[in-house]
Amino acid sequence: MAQTPSPFRTAEQRSRDRQAKKLALMEAAVRMFNTRGFHASSLDDVAASLGVTKPTVYHYLGNKENVLLECLRFGLKQLLDAATHARAQTGVAAERLRSFLIVYTQVNMSDFGRCVIRTPDEALSEESREVLRGLKRQIHAEMRSLIAEGQADGSIACEDANLLAFTLAGALNWPARWYDESRGHPPEETARRLVDNLAAGFLPRSRPSNP
Amino acid sequence: MAQTPSPFRTAEQRSRDRQAKKLALMEAAVRMFNTRGFHASSLDDVAASLGVTKPTVYHYLGNKENVLLECLRFGLKQLLDAATHARAQTGVAAERLRSFLIVYTQVNMSDFGRCVIRTPDEALSEESREVLRGLKRQIHAEMRSLIAEGQADGSIACEDANLLAFTLAGALNWPARWYDESRGHPPEETARRLVDNLAAGFLPRSRPSNP
Repeated sequence: MAQTPSPFRTAEQRSRDRQAKKLALMEAAVRMFNTRGFHASSLDDVAASLGVTKPTVYHYLGNKENVLLECLRFGLKQLLDAATHARAQTGVAAERLRSFLIVYTQVNMSDFGRCVIRTPDEALSEESREVLRGLKRQIHAEMRSLIAEGQADGSIACEDANLLAFTLAGALNWPARWYDESRGHPPEETARRLVDNLAAGFLPRSRPSNP
Repeated sequence: MAQTPSPFRTAEQRSRDRQAKKLALMEAAVRMFNTRGFHASSLDDVAASLGVTKPTVYHYLGNKENVLLECLRFGLKQLLDAATHARAQTGVAAERLRSFLIVYTQVNMSDFGRCVIRTPDEALSEESREVLRGLKRQIHAEMRSLIAEGQADGSIACEDANLLAFTLAGALNWPARWYDESRGHPPEETARRLVDNLAAGFLPRSRPSNP
């Protein structure tokens, strides 16, 4: 005879359940921040969009600033993960940089990435800003170090790795402001084309130089 | 015998005086918006920084949203002027585009340009947003049309002029967030290096292709 399943959830099930609820709340919140802006967003409305009440949001994520901070950390974590993944790949640095940049751009086109780019520093307390600055510095350092590897292995041409990292980041952060999935190419295709523009430059090349 | 100068100002002097006062108020306001963000800025403090009172700001510029709108229009006007100036130059389109982009970047490093890039849409009413969107569309169209001219005269290589305009704009808007004149190169030099990165691309070129 089959054993009756226990009506009590295991610790693992409870933890998974908690994570799923937290993520659903963050997704609802980040969409509202992106649409209305942080100041005009209300946790009451975030809660209502999921059929719960504000105390539920507080329970999982804390106050409004903390909800924003969690959303921004989540977006920045995705950008960092993309760098870690690219670093672990084989091949010349230019190819690893391209892979990283394509994912980086797609994150910036997503709800959490858009929130990272569009949220002005002033929306946050000095303490939260410092946490985020640390993560942003890590992402910048990852990009710069991939470029430096490319300078070393000859696959990337640039005078100043730090300035090139800022050049690339700017071009690939900006889709957070203009990209509209309902018009033009899908995210991955658009990201690839943007990165191609940056790789090739806008001056004609006399012959293909990408081996 | 020399005529005694009239103690009354001419219409022209009054108009110049009015413009100078308006600009001084806008400069004080834009610096505060950039430092504190729009929501945390107060017209009382803007006025106090020039030794006047809030009614003076109202007299010259209207309410806080209108002050912001005037600052943003002023910044966007500088970007448009840069395009008009580049369009009137001679030479191949790639060179005119470079000149435009270098000035475009320097505007974005200035107080008014920074405000254009850093101000989230949500800070404005729908009506003001529409005014600004119109100006931004004009600037984007100018950049796209310089690129199209370069595709036609062979000085610019790209598949999609619209997407290249977004690529360039993003890279050259971003200094509004990271550029710090107290560190690194001066604005014009930094702008030129950023534009060089975009012109050359990060993949090595087998030989110089810029005629």
